[in-house]
Amino acid sequence: MRVTVAVVNTCSSLGIGLAGFGTVGSGVWNTLERNGDLITGRTGGRIALHIAKILVRDPAKARATTSEVPADMFTTEWRALVEDPAVDIVVELIGGTTDAFDIVAAALRANKPVVTGNKALLAERGVELFAISREHQTPIHFEAAVAGGIPIIRTVQDSFIGNRIQSFSGIINGTSNFILGRMAEAGLSFQAALAEAQANGYAEADPTLDVNGWDAAHKAILLATLAYGFPIDASAIHVSGIEQVRPADIAFANNLGYVIKLLAVIREHPDHAVEIRVQPSFIAKSHILAAVHGVFNAVAVHGDAAGESLFYGRGAGQDPTASSVVADLVEAARSLGQVGGHRGFLPYRAAGQLLPVGQTSTAYYVRFDVTDRPGVIAEIARVLADHRIGISGTHSPVNPANPDAEFVDMVFLLHTCPFGQLQTALAEIETLDCVNSPPVVFRIEALT
Amino acid sequence: MRVTVAVVNTCSSLGIGLAGFGTVGSGVWNTLERNGDLITGRTGGRIALHIAKILVRDPAKARATTSEVPADMFTTEWRALVEDPAVDIVVELIGGTTDAFDIVAAALRANKPVVTGNKALLAERGVELFAISREHQTPIHFEAAVAGGIPIIRTVQDSFIGNRIQSFSGIINGTSNFILGRMAEAGLSFQAALAEAQANGYAEADPTLDVNGWDAAHKAILLATLAYGFPIDASAIHVSGIEQVRPADIAFANNLGYVIKLLAVIREHPDHAVEIRVQPSFIAKSHILAAVHGVFNAVAVHGDAAGESLFYGRGAGQDPTASSVVADLVEAARSLGQVGGHRGFLPYRAAGQLLPVGQTSTAYYVRFDVTDRPGVIAEIARVLADHRIGISGTHSPVNPANPDAEFVDMVFLLHTCPFGQLQTALAEIETLDCVNSPPVVFRIEALT
Repeated sequence: MRVTVAVVNTCSSLGIGLAGFGTVGSGVWNTLERNGDLITGRTGGRIALHIAKILVRDPAKARATTSEVPADMFTTEWRALVEDPAVDIVVELIGGTTDAFDIVAAALRANKPVVTGNKALLAERGVELFAISREHQTPIHFEAAVAGGIPIIRTVQDSFIGNRIQSFSGIINGTSNFILGRMAEAGLSFQAALAEAQANGYAEADPTLDVNGWDAAHKAILLATLAYGFPIDASAIHVSGIEQVRPADIAFANNLGYVIKLLAVIREHPDHAVEIRVQPSFIAKSHILAAVHGVFNAVAVHGDAAGESLFYGRGAGQDPTASSVVADLVEAARSLGQVGGHRGFLPYRAAGQLLPVGQTSTAYYVRFDVTDRPGVIAEIARVLADHRIGISGTHSPVNPANPDAEFVDMVFLLHTCPFGQLQTALAEIETLDCVNSPPVVFRIEALT
Repeated sequence: MRVTVAVVNTCSSLGIGLAGFGTVGSGVWNTLERNGDLITGRTGGRIALHIAKILVRDPAKARATTSEVPADMFTTEWRALVEDPAVDIVVELIGGTTDAFDIVAAALRANKPVVTGNKALLAERGVELFAISREHQTPIHFEAAVAGGIPIIRTVQDSFIGNRIQSFSGIINGTSNFILGRMAEAGLSFQAALAEAQANGYAEADPTLDVNGWDAAHKAILLATLAYGFPIDASAIHVSGIEQVRPADIAFANNLGYVIKLLAVIREHPDHAVEIRVQPSFIAKSHILAAVHGVFNAVAVHGDAAGESLFYGRGAGQDPTASSVVADLVEAARSLGQVGGHRGFLPYRAAGQLLPVGQTSTAYYVRFDVTDRPGVIAEIARVLADHRIGISGTHSPVNPANPDAEFVDMVFLLHTCPFGQLQTALAEIETLDCVNSPPVVFRIEALT
């Protein structure tokens, strides 16, 4: 039995061959299972996807998926995956640059679009693979290869297609950023912070490519290839990692107003020469990139039309990377030409439910224009209490120019309650003699 | 004579009809002129675009374009634009919801894809227009309608297609953000800050929709429609603007650790009811949205797979908005089906020039492991001087555990110079008796 993870509407469902079923592969399974119907709905019933075949080393291994994978979906032979007529699109998630190369090349030659998150493969052997892609007019999609769930590839390739890209500055290795952050916060040595990253699952057992800068360098090569369009020799890039950073360096930087980040810098010079380098770098604390903490990634892009932009999000992990793989799968489905080049048409469902504003809840700042006499706070507070609205503070700023003013502002900070409840209370407060005009209400947002 | 703004390679060039030729329209002209060849190159010669016809009120008016617009390209009659067989794609930039509606509807009925930046039109009459779009299987692209040069529409529509969107929190009206910023920085009243925004060209002569929250509300409706897919009645949205914010409110918020921003909040509740509101809101100073200053925009998105993401950039202005229009033009060209659903193939040019790392320049932090004796700084400084490298500071942190250590770290902060020049100097310094191991170099980046 096959698990069809998306409802088939007006389209035939496309079969996906997953080469590799580790963290990201399982994430793709789970995401399609959870949101496959949503994807089909959003594309106006044009696109449905299902996983048809999965390449694994050990079919008997336990899998951390939200539903059971039928045993007959597994194969241990990559040719069986690529050549399966039920497989329309191949997703390469095994890593490395040898078997992965063979799988991608074979899929392209079979005119099956490829989705991959393998930055090393594309940075080191992309020129060969893109040549095969072009020859067979079959695309390689690789959003997942750079910055996990951040759609930086599509942004550069599509959204900024009308821009000459002047520069990128990116924090694109979450492991290094986590380590540098822990060294800064807790004064840990590099080795201790690395061990903590490994204990938290933020660093591989072999963290070499993360800490020596090459993971970031591979991503930088892909960004530069997109922006400038010529093959880039990885050996010509200047790369150094964070192994030599010491807590004393971080403290010294801090005293000067800097933080140390592993930064990928790509810049086009006026003569069109392209600078690409990855190094530990001092950046001003006031710069927005200095606020990128933990395993988050961010890429600042400067385009000649768009100006300064920043893209921030989760640069790794099961679900964010699966988010990018799934977006590429939809793109690949479009490239198969069954569905036209355009998106679904909005709206894609007839009706939904808006939450009435009276039911929306936050904390509040409320400013009243009151007549200054004893008992004002008590009167307002009594009405709020009658309506079961908690007060976290009150304040009446004294106007220094007129300390004995008859009419003053009185501010109340209120606990979270539905806006409708607040409105009812405020309508009653407005009828008090001491309140001279409708109160002014701002929201206090608890943003995550 | 027609100005063909992109070299026609292996494709026929598509004709654009520009309805409206104000700030953004001129920006589209300039961007295509400047970067049209780049677009054609990046699409592997598949897409070329040229402006074929321009709808204006007054053809005699002087235009601020980087090249002269041929007089016979202008028309004052919108039907002449939409019906012109040389026009393949219609760009609607006239604003309003009446003539703009007629133009967009007529273009769709003529199977000409539409690109628009008109948020009011789509938020108020989008249901009608999207129905016509669906009926004629002809898309409306509207990246420019929300957040200028930030590709938030495409991100939600394509990159996050596999995500259930849990929330958006957005600063999506640059005028309001500028005004609130000036009130906070300079203690200006709302009226004074608005006047300053108008003097700087950051607010229209009639700023009503910007300051009363409705410009942001229109954008929020578009984001919610993309994420949740059902028609949204604008009259059901709770909207309040910044007119009632006073410097005293901002000062009070500041004392509590908050800033006041005009925030658009969209949130899906567990029962799938969607909350949409636009209000002045207290947000914690530590939140990344608090760092969005001036006319910049930012949208934080939380998707169930991608997790937390933030998209930041220029939310308005000629070039950023033109950047989004041009991206949509390329998308529209793809939807015309002449070019297949997929992107160009990488690399798209045979060769380019990498800047040798020796020629890349920044300031530097250099740490030496030295033998602590008199003359060490002088010896190192002499070599740096010989190589014409300026020193902005030196520092030798004393190890409190061992103040008389024989071997110590010595830090030099160096002025900007080419890395090659630094490397040559460091190679010489390494030969000094007092230097015990290769120095450690970090970059000091002057990020904009």
